Amino acid sequence: MDNLFQRIQSSFEKQGFMNTLDAQLQSVSPGTVVISCSYHPGLTQQHGFFHAGVLTSIVDTACGYAALTMMPEEKEVLSVEFKINMMRPAQSSQIIATGKVLKSGKTLTICEGIVTDETGEQVFAKMMATMIGR
Amino acid sequence: MDNLFQRIQSSFEKQGFMNTLDAQLQSVSPGTVVISCSYHPGLTQQHGFFHAGVLTSIVDTACGYAALTMMPEEKEVLSVEFKINMMRPAQSSQIIATGKVLKSGKTLTICEGIVTDETGEQVFAKMMATMIGR
Amino acid sequence: MDNLFQRIQSSFEKQGFMNTLDAQLQSVSPGTVVISCSYHPGLTQQHGFFHAGVLTSIVDTACGYAALTMMPEEKEVLSVEFKINMMRPAQSSQIIATGKVLKSGKTLTICEGIVTDETGEQVFAKMMATMIGR
Amino acid sequence: MDNLFQRIQSSFEKQGFMNTLDAQLQSVSPGTVVISCSYHPGLTQQHGFFHAGVLTSIVDTACGYAALTMMPEEKEVLSVEFKINMMRPAQSSQIIATGKVLKSGKTLTICEGIVTDETGEQVFAKMMATMIGR
Repeated sequence: MDNLFQRIQSSFEKQGFMNTLDAQLQSVSPGTVVISCSYHPGLTQQHGFFHAGVLTSIVDTACGYAALTMMPEEKEVLSVEFKINMMRPAQSSQIIATGKVLKSGKTLTICEGIVTDETGEQVFAKMMATMIGR
Repeated sequence: MDNLFQRIQSSFEKQGFMNTLDAQLQSVSPGTVVISCSYHPGLTQQHGFFHAGVLTSIVDTACGYAALTMMPEEKEVLSVEFKINMMRPAQSSQIIATGKVLKSGKTLTICEGIVTDETGEQVFAKMMATMIGR
Repeated sequence: MDNLFQRIQSSFEKQGFMNTLDAQLQSVSPGTVVISCSYHPGLTQQHGFFHAGVLTSIVDTACGYAALTMMPEEKEVLSVEFKINMMRPAQSSQIIATGKVLKSGKTLTICEGIVTDETGEQVFAKMMATMIGR
Repeated sequence: MDNLFQRIQSSFEKQGFMNTLDAQLQSVSPGTVVISCSYHPGLTQQHGFFHAGVLTSIVDTACGYAALTMMPEEKEVLSVEFKINMMRPAQSSQIIATGKVLKSGKTLTICEGIVTDETGEQVFAKMMATMIGR
């Protein structure tokens, strides 16, 4: 487990909400972070699929930490805003959110994220996000 | 409890994720839906405030149900996409999400939503969302 | 003509594109800027209505200058990002774009904008935008 | 010149605003449309770079036509909404907008677009858009 992973993992573990979702930090590399989340009935919308809010929560978190990998160690990251398109109902035993940095600036970092099934073949949602370092 | 409230409440109760968040359907009127959520440590980001994903989840749900109030009874609603700006850290004992219909079309409904503290004075986030009836 | 109007007008006149659109700076007050644009065939999409790009251009500009009214005199403003929903075809002899500041922060300013017909009754588009001062 | 190009070109030529921008339809293939626009002083913001509104106008148009390539011949396309992030000032002798279909549904088409310099190396802006066929 390298330093970058540990740095992100240490912040991730402080997020009570990621624990509530039972989300897992899968991988961390410079500019890219992957988070997974397994299906359970406490994460559903009214038709029994993953709630859009769950997809959004893990991909926002993946984008935020992707941005953080590009920042100096003492920095923290906050979501300024994001936009997400839902592409199809998220019917899957697991969802995988990947956040990637598109542009890392002095103040702001622009990221994109996708949420897929566990094979990566089905894309459930796509996000564009603006993050700020503090 | 009127018919419109019951119709929305009945769908709301099927959302396992709203139960996980311990979110409450507060009020329903034509074109407007209010959902609240009380603070607990399982809803936090790394600094102990409400996670952006929690704000997003309840205001997306409020916008979706606001759209549904304008649709024929047999319809269901899905989020096509939304964009949310985080205005300030959501440090509050309770958050209140209000979804309102801006434009109700034949196929699509455009909504806006805000998330505030329990007094309504502090605005934590603002959303614009596109909903589709099926 | 007050100082604030002159400050914004002086920057507005340097925008070659606003001149190409024949857009007019209508009013400036702290946190709010209004820009109008009259119909001509050079501003249309394929059905003869105002092009979505024209609506977007003037309301982005109105939001940017609304943000600038809240910044110290030496600052300049840039659009970080925006999202716009088109509500109905912009069939009108004139369009009016109003940009308003929702939240003015140290680094970022969050604005919303609307584009209406000349009476203000028909809303053609609504924007949410993030601006940065430099 | 194939049928698909001709179909898009025929609609493109009816857009008075594309003519005002002196934008050119560069290429059309199923799911992808490229539009270019050369620099001139009538397209600038206050610092002499391309106005964000110009970038947005051509990439929205490229996304719309990319969506149209996936629709039956009798259909027309309208922008429901889009979000665009400005990545850096668009200082270039020419800008190239590429619109691509991410997901083509029965009613809605989700697209992404980028605006680059003429080499494609510098990305000035990135868009996500929702289009509707009528």
